[in-house]
Amino acid sequence: MARIKIINPNTTWSLTNSLGNHLRQYVEPSTELITVSPQMGPPSIESFYDDYLSVPGILEEIQKGDREEAIDAYVIACFGDPGLYAARELTNAPVLGIAEAAMQMASMVAATFTIVTTLPRTRMMSERLLYDYGMKDKCRSIRTTPLHVLDLTGGAEPSVRCVIDECRQAVQEDAAESIVLGCAAMSVHRERIECEVGVPVIDGALAAVKFCEALVGCRIKTSKALTFAEPEAKPFVGILDRFGNQQRTSVKEI
Amino acid sequence: MARIKIINPNTTWSLTNSLGNHLRQYVEPSTELITVSPQMGPPSIESFYDDYLSVPGILEEIQKGDREEAIDAYVIACFGDPGLYAARELTNAPVLGIAEAAMQMASMVAATFTIVTTLPRTRMMSERLLYDYGMKDKCRSIRTTPLHVLDLTGGAEPSVRCVIDECRQAVQEDAAESIVLGCAAMSVHRERIECEVGVPVIDGALAAVKFCEALVGCRIKTSKALTFAEPEAKPFVGILDRFGNQQRTSVKEI
Amino acid sequence: MARIKIINPNTTWSLTNSLGNHLRQYVEPSTELITVSPQMGPPSIESFYDDYLSVPGILEEIQKGDREEAIDAYVIACFGDPGLYAARELTNAPVLGIAEAAMQMASMVAATFTIVTTLPRTRMMSERLLYDYGMKDKCRSIRTTPLHVLDLTGGAEPSVRCVIDECRQAVQEDAAESIVLGCAAMSVHRERIECEVGVPVIDGALAAVKFCEALVGCRIKTSKALTFAEPEAKPFVGILDRFGNQQRTSVKEI
Amino acid sequence: MARIKIINPNTTWSLTNSLGNHLRQYVEPSTELITVSPQMGPPSIESFYDDYLSVPGILEEIQKGDREEAIDAYVIACFGDPGLYAARELTNAPVLGIAEAAMQMASMVAATFTIVTTLPRTRMMSERLLYDYGMKDKCRSIRTTPLHVLDLTGGAEPSVRCVIDECRQAVQEDAAESIVLGCAAMSVHRERIECEVGVPVIDGALAAVKFCEALVGCRIKTSKALTFAEPEAKPFVGILDRFGNQQRTSVKEI
Amino acid sequence: MARIKIINPNTTWSLTNSLGNHLRQYVEPSTELITVSPQMGPPSIESFYDDYLSVPGILEEIQKGDREEAIDAYVIACFGDPGLYAARELTNAPVLGIAEAAMQMASMVAATFTIVTTLPRTRMMSERLLYDYGMKDKCRSIRTTPLHVLDLTGGAEPSVRCVIDECRQAVQEDAAESIVLGCAAMSVHRERIECEVGVPVIDGALAAVKFCEALVGCRIKTSKALTFAEPEAKPFVGILDRFGNQQRTSVKEI
Amino acid sequence: MARIKIINPNTTWSLTNSLGNHLRQYVEPSTELITVSPQMGPPSIESFYDDYLSVPGILEEIQKGDREEAIDAYVIACFGDPGLYAARELTNAPVLGIAEAAMQMASMVAATFTIVTTLPRTRMMSERLLYDYGMKDKCRSIRTTPLHVLDLTGGAEPSVRCVIDECRQAVQEDAAESIVLGCAAMSVHRERIECEVGVPVIDGALAAVKFCEALVGCRIKTSKALTFAEPEAKPFVGILDRFGNQQRTSVKEI
Repeated sequence: MARIKIINPNTTWSLTNSLGNHLRQYVEPSTELITVSPQMGPPSIESFYDDYLSVPGILEEIQKGDREEAIDAYVIACFGDPGLYAARELTNAPVLGIAEAAMQMASMVAATFTIVTTLPRTRMMSERLLYDYGMKDKCRSIRTTPLHVLDLTGGAEPSVRCVIDECRQAVQEDAAESIVLGCAAMSVHRERIECEVGVPVIDGALAAVKFCEALVGCRIKTSKALTFAEPEAKPFVGILDRFGNQQRTSVKEI
Repeated sequence: MARIKIINPNTTWSLTNSLGNHLRQYVEPSTELITVSPQMGPPSIESFYDDYLSVPGILEEIQKGDREEAIDAYVIACFGDPGLYAARELTNAPVLGIAEAAMQMASMVAATFTIVTTLPRTRMMSERLLYDYGMKDKCRSIRTTPLHVLDLTGGAEPSVRCVIDECRQAVQEDAAESIVLGCAAMSVHRERIECEVGVPVIDGALAAVKFCEALVGCRIKTSKALTFAEPEAKPFVGILDRFGNQQRTSVKEI
Repeated sequence: MARIKIINPNTTWSLTNSLGNHLRQYVEPSTELITVSPQMGPPSIESFYDDYLSVPGILEEIQKGDREEAIDAYVIACFGDPGLYAARELTNAPVLGIAEAAMQMASMVAATFTIVTTLPRTRMMSERLLYDYGMKDKCRSIRTTPLHVLDLTGGAEPSVRCVIDECRQAVQEDAAESIVLGCAAMSVHRERIECEVGVPVIDGALAAVKFCEALVGCRIKTSKALTFAEPEAKPFVGILDRFGNQQRTSVKEI
Repeated sequence: MARIKIINPNTTWSLTNSLGNHLRQYVEPSTELITVSPQMGPPSIESFYDDYLSVPGILEEIQKGDREEAIDAYVIACFGDPGLYAARELTNAPVLGIAEAAMQMASMVAATFTIVTTLPRTRMMSERLLYDYGMKDKCRSIRTTPLHVLDLTGGAEPSVRCVIDECRQAVQEDAAESIVLGCAAMSVHRERIECEVGVPVIDGALAAVKFCEALVGCRIKTSKALTFAEPEAKPFVGILDRFGNQQRTSVKEI
Repeated sequence: MARIKIINPNTTWSLTNSLGNHLRQYVEPSTELITVSPQMGPPSIESFYDDYLSVPGILEEIQKGDREEAIDAYVIACFGDPGLYAARELTNAPVLGIAEAAMQMASMVAATFTIVTTLPRTRMMSERLLYDYGMKDKCRSIRTTPLHVLDLTGGAEPSVRCVIDECRQAVQEDAAESIVLGCAAMSVHRERIECEVGVPVIDGALAAVKFCEALVGCRIKTSKALTFAEPEAKPFVGILDRFGNQQRTSVKEI
Repeated sequence: MARIKIINPNTTWSLTNSLGNHLRQYVEPSTELITVSPQMGPPSIESFYDDYLSVPGILEEIQKGDREEAIDAYVIACFGDPGLYAARELTNAPVLGIAEAAMQMASMVAATFTIVTTLPRTRMMSERLLYDYGMKDKCRSIRTTPLHVLDLTGGAEPSVRCVIDECRQAVQEDAAESIVLGCAAMSVHRERIECEVGVPVIDGALAAVKFCEALVGCRIKTSKALTFAEPEAKPFVGILDRFGNQQRTSVKEI
């Protein structure tokens, strides 16, 4: 039995809830999905500014998950994988970002992928992740759209069509052999998009949840050896004082 | 429900069977594991020569799996990932190699890993895989041992100790934050090694089986768009004639 | 005339002040240095956790600098370059991180460098920056020490000796042709270290301040074309609500 | 005097013979060319499946060459360089693949090249070779055509025109400074293509034969130190049993 | 006070003088700019041939600068950075090339840049510099023009328009976030181009001069530890005899 | 019949002559070797300064070779490959550098190599060539010695022993599978070194001469399409005036 906590790093709970409902279709009977948005931060993430300012809320949810919720694995459900390395320091449960998970799943079933994502300004966010994860050579292109993250909530038909059109062009013009969806808000549309596009379409939120099940099933934990060792307790100041001192109570060495 | 076929590419069935028994501990109740060695090829894989000559037998098992066994996903259980791309052409079920799976799982829970593997001559096999999978920068070192693959069967204590010692040195000298076991014959010893070494120890056979469950659970198939499109039927000659002409009967476009 | 704001991202004002006093020795007569620590965050930065949680405070100082202080250029004075890309979005004044500045200055005067930095757990932070800045091939090694950031304040002699010893080994064992100091708290000791070590010793805080003078002198601003375009205003929630909505008032297109 | 054995890894002997006749025009008077197709395998190589299944036949020809034919150097004449590393293990005579040879010759006479090859599905085969051989940055593009390998036999005029047209576009659109022909079946047309295209056109089969003469002339052998050490003798099973046990009789340390 | 010597490596003094006059607008009051062309070499640099043959004249100016002119820092003002590493051996004053300086300045204010340069044949010169300086991933494209270097002297309007048009296309087609001007002869037009193009336009000559001021202000010298150690004195022959034997008189260890 | 001109870029004719005599043992009966040192430049090349100042003399020999000597191919016999790209512009005969040739030959017969070369300060020269030629991943290490170039002339026994010892360590400590000799002065000792070291030892001068024979035999010329197009004629000034204006008389388009 696995308790997996999905943290949608933006504060738009309607998206959080629909994502949770969607993903519950795919999990093992023994898996419990907890889906939350943080108590602080931006309503959507479309810049490095939004990305960094979503991290405190994510870290708070990780700490709460470890202290109060007996969580076995975490998913950070934003394609920028905000704060991933910090989150891994905080817990010895596995923590997966959806960009890393999506790229890894794509590379399991296709020789190449194209990322289809939101606003043009986010291109560099995807590009940096490709380098961090060693996936640059498998990526045929990063295709942005005029879509804001929240354009994709509520099943807005024109936005979904826009994504499908971009995916089709990826297949035709880039010869992409799979598509990586570059936004958690696209998650609920994955099956339809795949159906219309004709190559595997990978949603990182789904990939991350299923990989979390795999990791919990293997009883593999986050390494506490060096980089992801627990942060030292320190007195933080100002409105972030809650992040100081006590953060260490629940992490145990494997 | 997932039917996963594990192909141990060497013909040493004692290893194949113990691997299957070990992995069955970890799968979901609804998963069925079929574990085989090919009908042709080498008894162990320790050179590029062995590696290439294991591929026909692997491909035959993939074809049989698709035609006769209704397999949902395949694992090629040798750390060289022999014939992986050819296998992916043959079926639209996912096919995972254990080197790729191990490196991907390691990167989910640790910032770096070291590979601990068999004979020195296999170093280049591991090195090439690191490049192919974009994992070079995450790998702290490749550590070979004086062990043959078959030294690790039957629970031979001195061989296991040799692996543990090398893992310990990896942690101390390389500051490796996790270990990737570089041989399927080490699989059954993973838990013990991890216990003694103190950082996550990743076995690719286990990782691949659990990732197969994840892929089947996501209903993601191998892309048939370009690189992994089904091979054209052709008349093969000589003792390999069975690989000609008919190979295509079961692959369906997604 | 240039007004340069140095943001020491940790909240240890004694370090902030001594850094400011040290750097004032080096600036042009027409340059004014403003040196601050943020109103929120950790007292030192030694983990990804600390790094991410220093970013809100940095961004607040950038916004204040643009709105109230008529700042011409900013320096983020922590070797992890926390939040650098987010900071560049917020202003069209140049924003330099001290890691990037140090590596660039080192590459101007030496064919190779070694980074000498604080605790072993920060190794991966330096390693990622090397990749981000294209400096991996010029870096001979990253050498960590047992030093916490705050061990280096107050001129503590044993800590400085420890740094000097590590630098000496870098020259002897790595054949490093220059040293990059991997912590702003080492800044005030640069001259002494260089004197003892015999190769150029680069302090990123000094490098960044002088490069800021250069950029202001060239009248070059941060590009607002795509990646670093101003973030859209949005309603933030919780204790970070101050980062929402109004952030845009002072950025002007060039 | 050099005895060079060209192994065309497909079983289409008409291609093998015309290749041999073509290449004999270029060799030194003292060079003897032996040209063969294997006793087993596919009639053409256009997928990873074909590629891997051509390897047993290639290895058999290497063993025969060493035991019975006193061969001084080998050429594997398929642009995928199938089984190259395994072949190098089997013999201390040099073994060259035509892709590696072509890329190396191109880099001797031009700053960049474009690969013009057969079916689109083979793109990834070329791409992987570029990485393996460190040639990625010199390659301007990989241009595929609708041509099957066997379309190029028998001097079929439309196929040759198709190749020439693609080469011309490479020069005009990619500013390619040389062309690498991506299929041994294009070998016999090299001079005509070069004549029409106006930049150096490199055929790997010719390049490899001439480089073999060079290696034999230098008395340089394949290293037996580690990676390419002779495979250990083992009992193989099934239809591949002939590859077991006896494979070692002729390899001598240099 | 800094004495900076700008060496325009071509022998076209009108360009040298106008460059000097232009750059004097930007320097600190205490900076003295000395601007020269060498006594030997080509009138413009548009090939590797020109580039290499400009180096003896550059090196002579460095030696003269150290022996007779008490120079604090040098700029080599040609976008190929000819002879940069040799120049750094000759002196312990900093020596900057304008390509390196431009790419570094661009990376301080923009996530990406495009190089706009002269004749198509110089593309590979820029490409090699991108690799040498670790800037390949930040460069969106290299755009050549039909312009010779000397077309850009004397303010020739059609040439400047041609550069502006190419810069505009870089912004529109490549989404370049800044422009790096790929020729010192474009220097005097930087402000106008930036005004028309709307993203930061970086001139390496200006960047290098300001970075020289920064280096002198930091009292950082060129490392004499290994790569840039002073060359040994040797008897040179022929018309280059003046480069032998005496070259060492002024270099002092730091 | 091939006329190959070997340009030893230093002016030490005793080395030039012994190199020529040595290489004549290896060429085809129909090959004529012309061996020269330039009329100008340094007596040995051990710094970037020496390297650049050897280039004018090399280029003069190329021009003379094309105009007066009917040369079919050129070898630049210094391990820094000085002026290689400029030389390729000047002629449509192939021009090979010995570093490039050695690395290519090593990669034909071994999975890895180590470079054994002269003074420590030349390390960066070798390192840059590894990047330029895409050979970085095949190189296990660069091993320098205390040897000057001219220590290796005249068969000085202690110097040869020093090289042999370093090669032995490369095999034992780096597991290097072949050795690349990093200086043309080591050329005459290659066979003896190989004999003592037990892995292939590659001399670039020999490799380049044999590859020149191969290129001439293939009738492949240097591309004149873009990068290596003939330089434009220009009026050069000063002691280099002989390099201006007339350089173009003999280059013909292929």
